Amino acid sequence: MARITVPEIETIMAEELPFAANFGEVVFERLEDGDVMIRMPVDASHMRPGGTVSGPVLKGLADLVMYALVLSRIGPVKLAVTTNLTANFLRRPGTADLMAEGRLIKCGKRLAYGEVTLYSDGEPDDPVCHVTSTYSIPPPEAR
Amino acid sequence: MARITVPEIETIMAEELPFAANFGEVVFERLEDGDVMIRMPVDASHMRPGGTVSGPVLKGLADLVMYALVLSRIGPVKLAVTTNLTANFLRRPGTADLMAEGRLIKCGKRLAYGEVTLYSDGEPDDPVCHVTSTYSIPPPEAR
Amino acid sequence: MARITVPEIETIMAEELPFAANFGEVVFERLEDGDVMIRMPVDASHMRPGGTVSGPVLKGLADLVMYALVLSRIGPVKLAVTTNLTANFLRRPGTADLMAEGRLIKCGKRLAYGEVTLYSDGEPDDPVCHVTSTYSIPPPEAR
Amino acid sequence: MARITVPEIETIMAEELPFAANFGEVVFERLEDGDVMIRMPVDASHMRPGGTVSGPVLKGLADLVMYALVLSRIGPVKLAVTTNLTANFLRRPGTADLMAEGRLIKCGKRLAYGEVTLYSDGEPDDPVCHVTSTYSIPPPEAR
Repeated sequence: MARITVPEIETIMAEELPFAANFGEVVFERLEDGDVMIRMPVDASHMRPGGTVSGPVLKGLADLVMYALVLSRIGPVKLAVTTNLTANFLRRPGTADLMAEGRLIKCGKRLAYGEVTLYSDGEPDDPVCHVTSTYSIPPPEAR
Repeated sequence: MARITVPEIETIMAEELPFAANFGEVVFERLEDGDVMIRMPVDASHMRPGGTVSGPVLKGLADLVMYALVLSRIGPVKLAVTTNLTANFLRRPGTADLMAEGRLIKCGKRLAYGEVTLYSDGEPDDPVCHVTSTYSIPPPEAR
Repeated sequence: MARITVPEIETIMAEELPFAANFGEVVFERLEDGDVMIRMPVDASHMRPGGTVSGPVLKGLADLVMYALVLSRIGPVKLAVTTNLTANFLRRPGTADLMAEGRLIKCGKRLAYGEVTLYSDGEPDDPVCHVTSTYSIPPPEAR
Repeated sequence: MARITVPEIETIMAEELPFAANFGEVVFERLEDGDVMIRMPVDASHMRPGGTVSGPVLKGLADLVMYALVLSRIGPVKLAVTTNLTANFLRRPGTADLMAEGRLIKCGKRLAYGEVTLYSDGEPDDPVCHVTSTYSIPPPEAR
């Protein structure tokens, strides 16, 4: 069972992650322990000319899923921070909703590591972007 | 000599990169062949609680420098796209202007590769973030 | 169905990949289209003091799986080369057989991308190393 | 001034890094604090058909430089381990000596980060491979 709820993470997003406002109305379709899926309806503000979603929106969305993955395991620890994010862009997305599905691969005492796959709704086998990321977890006395 | 000018790249940013509006008034302090430096004054809209610049702004700024690096070598080819971006976050920046300094390491016919270092103005030896990135360059007939 | 067989890939390994001799007797437990699993019995030559497998052996094994993934889709194209390899080391392996399981995430005309997970036999949920990699595929006229 | 000497690091290599035997007679051309350059004469054992150095040798050499960079700053701490290694392969090297030049970008209490550029002797501006890497540093009580 996840150690954080959707309302808790939405509160953290509103208070701590002003960038998340760029995503519009994201929906947590799944928030389990180490297993998260978000849906982001694509609108004009996300696009670049050519009818594709801009890179920073893709990376930001992946980072949000990764953050949710970490909190799903360790609870609402606000000081967890990204130390590495590696994004591979595989094709241009269209205008369908973007699905961002993440999996926590490792969660140790000091470091967490996971992967996030982004795809256009209905096309899970032809992903848009694949991201791996490491988070640094503060020691208990610093949380 | 760079194969693109600052006004040309600012036009591309305005037309093609709506995300760049999030950066506010960035200044190209240097735009040479394979050698670019941008200054981004930090304001409240870039910050997250704790007084630090948000990750997507850092990655987006690095991506903009990388794009400028590629265009500085090949000219205004709009279809060049990021295929990989690897960001390592090294410390939290403060509120000083962010400097983003990039160097093109390789520019072949199909792939370009470079690195971008972000640091707070006045502290080039204690960087905030180090990014490497690969761009895919379209073949001449597709540009 | 894979477009290469185990004997074909073993011939390429013997002729083209002298480094593979360091792996000893690897066994292809699965070689399907975009889906490969190799078993590598660990012996003293792979170890570093402390009873753990050396990093270059892990990365080399992941690279071999990635190569097999690409050939499983495009057939025996010898000129395919790695352009990026990102390895995240998650814990020290013991002396059990190392399992290396790979999945091709994307295979376009010019670039292929996949991931490889390494784990000690019997412990698939506590991986040793996770690798993502991009291969450059030569155009048909250059193969 | 470096906190480790060339004889000290050669002893660690002989005792702890059996893989380093694959490199033959590497020479530390420079071992300063956070600034290391190694020369590796290329011989037949490093090559793959086509007259190029094999990928695992390149990555292993970069990893050795990264390890030396960390020890140059923190002294002979044997338990420092790689957590991430990202290698970008830029062109095939020839048979000239391989030069591996590294720079420590950050060295905190828990994590160190640096970059290594590999090039064929005499061609520093046309690199073969560019590597970034993160090391985890054990806390003082665990060294």
